[in-house]
Amino acid sequence: MTELPDEGRYRAVIDAVLPNVDAGAYPLKRIAGEHFAIEAHCYADGHDRLRVVLCWQAGERGELFEVEMTPAGNDAWRAQFLPRVPGLYDYSVIAWVDSFESWRHDLERREDLQDIRIAVAVGAALIESAAGRAPRGDAEILGAWSKALRGAAADPQGDSGTLKTLALDTARTDLARRYADRRFASRRRYSLVVDRKRAEFSTWYELFPRSSAAQAGQHGTFRDVEEQLPRLARMGFDVLYFPPIHPIGRINRKGSNNALAAAATDVGSPWAIGAAEGGHKAILPALGGFEEFRSLLARAAQLGIEIALDLAFQCAPDHPYVSAHPEWFRRRPDGSVQYAENPPKKYQDIYPFDFETDAWAELWQELKSVVDFWIERGVKIFRVDNPHTKALGFWQWLIGAVKREHADVIFLAEAFTRPKLMLGLAKLGFTQSYTYFTWRNSKQELTNYFSELNTGPSREYYRPNLWPNTPDILPEPLQSGLRSVFAARLVLAATLSGNYGIYGPTYELMESSAREAGSEEYLDSEKYQLRHWQLHRPDSLRSLIARVNRARRENPALQSNQGLQFCPIDNDQLIAYLKRDAATGNVVLIVVNLDPLHVQSGWLELDLASLQLDPRTDFQVHDLLSDQRYLWRGPRNYVSLDPGRMPAHVLRLRHRVRSEHDFDYFL
Amino acid sequence: MTELPDEGRYRAVIDAVLPNVDAGAYPLKRIAGEHFAIEAHCYADGHDRLRVVLCWQAGERGELFEVEMTPAGNDAWRAQFLPRVPGLYDYSVIAWVDSFESWRHDLERREDLQDIRIAVAVGAALIESAAGRAPRGDAEILGAWSKALRGAAADPQGDSGTLKTLALDTARTDLARRYADRRFASRRRYSLVVDRKRAEFSTWYELFPRSSAAQAGQHGTFRDVEEQLPRLARMGFDVLYFPPIHPIGRINRKGSNNALAAAATDVGSPWAIGAAEGGHKAILPALGGFEEFRSLLARAAQLGIEIALDLAFQCAPDHPYVSAHPEWFRRRPDGSVQYAENPPKKYQDIYPFDFETDAWAELWQELKSVVDFWIERGVKIFRVDNPHTKALGFWQWLIGAVKREHADVIFLAEAFTRPKLMLGLAKLGFTQSYTYFTWRNSKQELTNYFSELNTGPSREYYRPNLWPNTPDILPEPLQSGLRSVFAARLVLAATLSGNYGIYGPTYELMESSAREAGSEEYLDSEKYQLRHWQLHRPDSLRSLIARVNRARRENPALQSNQGLQFCPIDNDQLIAYLKRDAATGNVVLIVVNLDPLHVQSGWLELDLASLQLDPRTDFQVHDLLSDQRYLWRGPRNYVSLDPGRMPAHVLRLRHRVRSEHDFDYFL
Repeated sequence: MTELPDEGRYRAVIDAVLPNVDAGAYPLKRIAGEHFAIEAHCYADGHDRLRVVLCWQAGERGELFEVEMTPAGNDAWRAQFLPRVPGLYDYSVIAWVDSFESWRHDLERREDLQDIRIAVAVGAALIESAAGRAPRGDAEILGAWSKALRGAAADPQGDSGTLKTLALDTARTDLARRYADRRFASRRRYSLVVDRKRAEFSTWYELFPRSSAAQAGQHGTFRDVEEQLPRLARMGFDVLYFPPIHPIGRINRKGSNNALAAAATDVGSPWAIGAAEGGHKAILPALGGFEEFRSLLARAAQLGIEIALDLAFQCAPDHPYVSAHPEWFRRRPDGSVQYAENPPKKYQDIYPFDFETDAWAELWQELKSVVDFWIERGVKIFRVDNPHTKALGFWQWLIGAVKREHADVIFLAEAFTRPKLMLGLAKLGFTQSYTYFTWRNSKQELTNYFSELNTGPSREYYRPNLWPNTPDILPEPLQSGLRSVFAARLVLAATLSGNYGIYGPTYELMESSAREAGSEEYLDSEKYQLRHWQLHRPDSLRSLIARVNRARRENPALQSNQGLQFCPIDNDQLIAYLKRDAATGNVVLIVVNLDPLHVQSGWLELDLASLQLDPRTDFQVHDLLSDQRYLWRGPRNYVSLDPGRMPAHVLRLRHRVRSEHDFDYFL
Repeated sequence: MTELPDEGRYRAVIDAVLPNVDAGAYPLKRIAGEHFAIEAHCYADGHDRLRVVLCWQAGERGELFEVEMTPAGNDAWRAQFLPRVPGLYDYSVIAWVDSFESWRHDLERREDLQDIRIAVAVGAALIESAAGRAPRGDAEILGAWSKALRGAAADPQGDSGTLKTLALDTARTDLARRYADRRFASRRRYSLVVDRKRAEFSTWYELFPRSSAAQAGQHGTFRDVEEQLPRLARMGFDVLYFPPIHPIGRINRKGSNNALAAAATDVGSPWAIGAAEGGHKAILPALGGFEEFRSLLARAAQLGIEIALDLAFQCAPDHPYVSAHPEWFRRRPDGSVQYAENPPKKYQDIYPFDFETDAWAELWQELKSVVDFWIERGVKIFRVDNPHTKALGFWQWLIGAVKREHADVIFLAEAFTRPKLMLGLAKLGFTQSYTYFTWRNSKQELTNYFSELNTGPSREYYRPNLWPNTPDILPEPLQSGLRSVFAARLVLAATLSGNYGIYGPTYELMESSAREAGSEEYLDSEKYQLRHWQLHRPDSLRSLIARVNRARRENPALQSNQGLQFCPIDNDQLIAYLKRDAATGNVVLIVVNLDPLHVQSGWLELDLASLQLDPRTDFQVHDLLSDQRYLWRGPRNYVSLDPGRMPAHVLRLRHRVRSEHDFDYFL
């Protein structure tokens, strides 16, 4: 005898459930308050009727909801649900061959009286069985219906019409449907991470608190940062991100410009975490204490700004962990701790954790306690330093565990690494991810990259956060120091994704000096020394930044990673794309001149039908940067951008509308 | 404390393994003797080195093989294996962060002598641990090497070169690699169905044995069929398929042309299986007995022909199962057995099995015993009647169980149903599948459909078997009776797929009468009555059929479903496509005139580079139907086809070759 399955009566097949990530191996990501639409491909043998339901639940103990999926043709079934609050949702598609539904479908088509009599008797039995699954009140109604059907079937006077009317009664049919026989239902389970809106719409400003002192040469403090908050709010930022704020190691401390030997006055790299004063749960005393930190967060919150901290899971040689938990580090044969290296390069100021340690469980719990520590102190956003150099399974666990307890926490993966690893980190849980935008400059590069991010499978889980610069990366085009380059890269970052950020003071001031030719490192980088920034300089970019961020705040189309579409324009130096928000109908057209030195012009093509624009009526494009308005008509329109003035248009499309008082305006 | 996984030290991630069917939910299909190439996307955190191996096994108890996967860039790893015999293969990708490999990679790059000393000592420990995993002989070599390294590391005289040479020794490195530390290896498992070649290259002829008598009006027998075998072999068929050969029910038997009431002399439909003489394991006495059946199979085998039987899992009302196993059928309220119906249509001569019966396990086993019964009598190919009206889980189990015992058995799914269900049957195990080819006539329809089958995800599991007609389907174009239509549809079926078949006698004789206008049923169908075919009629298609089948036999390009590519040709009535066999380089170009009445001409474009043809040298196209040869040159060549003569070219491409005696010929 050949081995049989435990149960052979499952007849419904759930072939696919869309969208999905790797057939359900990883959760999809969505935003709270937005409908989540699902398509399931389900079928069974024969002509019997299927029923398919979508079941969902917030968290493991949330209330269970269920909605009927409706056939959309070609064995596709559709339904949606609204995850109202952030959290991890479980959802299932459940399908079964429904004997009641099949009976009803067949009965409607029967013509022969004798056949109808028999069918009505069959239905009476099905309804009786439904009554057996129903609670008392409904059971009585169904029981009575079944009895009536049985009587009618046996009545030699009964005609087809009367029998069918009784058997197809709509109200009682709906009742019977509630108590379907699901013994042999097939089920497929999936999960969904629902985040708050800031996960896909956030505007980041990075600064080193120690460089924020009012006086040059002084060590900045949280109080100094607090002074800057109104200015940052006016510019439109809602996330203020700090490099690590912890005590900085003294052993093997690096000097200015990454010098191997530090002078006594050198402040060290904030990423060399830990010293006698404490480690990942301590604050560098020169910045202030927990009271100042609390005050800073409170003031920021009043201004709509969240503070994001850096999670850099590594230690300076004098981090308290090194002596307290030697088992968390790898040893060299001489007993010394293995420092970070990528031969022949050595990073002797940094000890990585050994994720293959036998004590991995304690290490994981301790690292989670670091995150919990800062969450308790009001931090909800973490920028994770080099997550691709720590065990990937650890992140999957950590992010899952933290978000189960605090669904509103956001993790940004600072990984600039190989493509599959970048995507892998997002799959296994990171809320947002750094991208290759930093090095995508030409029209072709930008079009290819953002088409892939917006239409490829990664769109379901990889949320780009675009940075034109970071403290580690001064890209070659910015080294020109040209205002047009800084402006163009800002507009691109701010409009190609719902999330973007700048390494702020240097960007405002268009800092452009690299440490040496061919390097992307800043000269006199804040990573290794204090700087003092003349943020009120008249030539700063702040007013453009404020205008760009205001356009983002006022246009839902710019507040997500969805709805991007490139537009043909007959000039390789001009890139044009639409951003659309389906819910509000808001449409913004962005055109950027990628040539920093010359005026570039071209004819731009719009697909008017998809924009619901009449080719014979003019419409308005309103430049949110210059506040100028242009009347356009038809699919081809002329654009010219002078980089000496402003290298970009951010054009809100406005339809012509006739008011009730019979005058036209643009909405 | 948050719950932790059982083991947190798995660092390698196997992100995807390609190709696959639904991320590995179903097996891929391949042919024995052909290399199976796999790409795995694997990565881990950090700079450490991965090792990835591919492991495979024929069946559950086969020998285990393993091959190293090689990096192909961008985190892709490749390997292949050769499944030599048909069977179900299990294969796995196994990946781990390899400490020995990482050590070696770093050591090669180290420059500092002190660092090299320490590294050599680290390596000595790693090699010692490898020795602990090795059998005695290898353990001794590795132990000695480890000791030598430890000594060298401690020797204050040792220089970098000597140390590196000793530590990077290739032969001993290869040995150490065999005993890698795989404690934390990640693994993903897949399966592969390997079939014999006939699964993708088969040429089917369908006939009703009862219509094969030499004399009109007589009931044909297996002996009559045996007489026909040499003729079928000459025409080039290798599968001879019979409708059911079992006793035919007498209760509710249908008459000629599907009449509800049969006359006493009516022979009934072979699909109404079972009568007093027996059921699915019996032979209709009028056809002969098991001895004649055995003789027929033996003679067919001598001629290279296999007999395919029909698996129609349903019963006539007088099938012995109905009384012996009433629990396998659904009952109506009056106690009678539920016949097949699709209201308002009724099929009272057929009782379907109830796949939701409580006795499903016994039913499944009995149906499998039917297959086993015929396998024991030499049948290895089954055409399964309407599999989409029986529980899909049953087929998955049945085909899996049968093929585990008899890997060379082939199941053809006769399902003409909705697309996802057609594909679903193939996913869950059917070796070959009927297709929509039967109704795809225009250039656009054929191009779309075969592009989808050849380039879509179904190419990994759905093997089309093309039928221009069947006893159930006389498609509308064939009802014209035009020889050009029959010829064109034959060439298309025979060249668009490795598998094709014809409902033979009617096709040879270009039978074209439908039962009534608008119907696809044959008039006086063999399904309900005996017919007598004048197969020696001079106007039959037999010589064209023989030429087409010979072209298939002689050209590997026509022997699989792979390597199809449509070619542009500037006439909508002409369709052109290449078939290529990668292993032999064999290329056949097919051009068909879809207009049955008019000469059609056009310029055909070939991608010469991909064919490795020199645009300045002529090449030969050799028409395998007419045996004419043409010299072509360059990418555009002229084609003209007169449907009154022959509506198709089947052109073998031959390169110009210079012989050693300095004359040119075409190979």
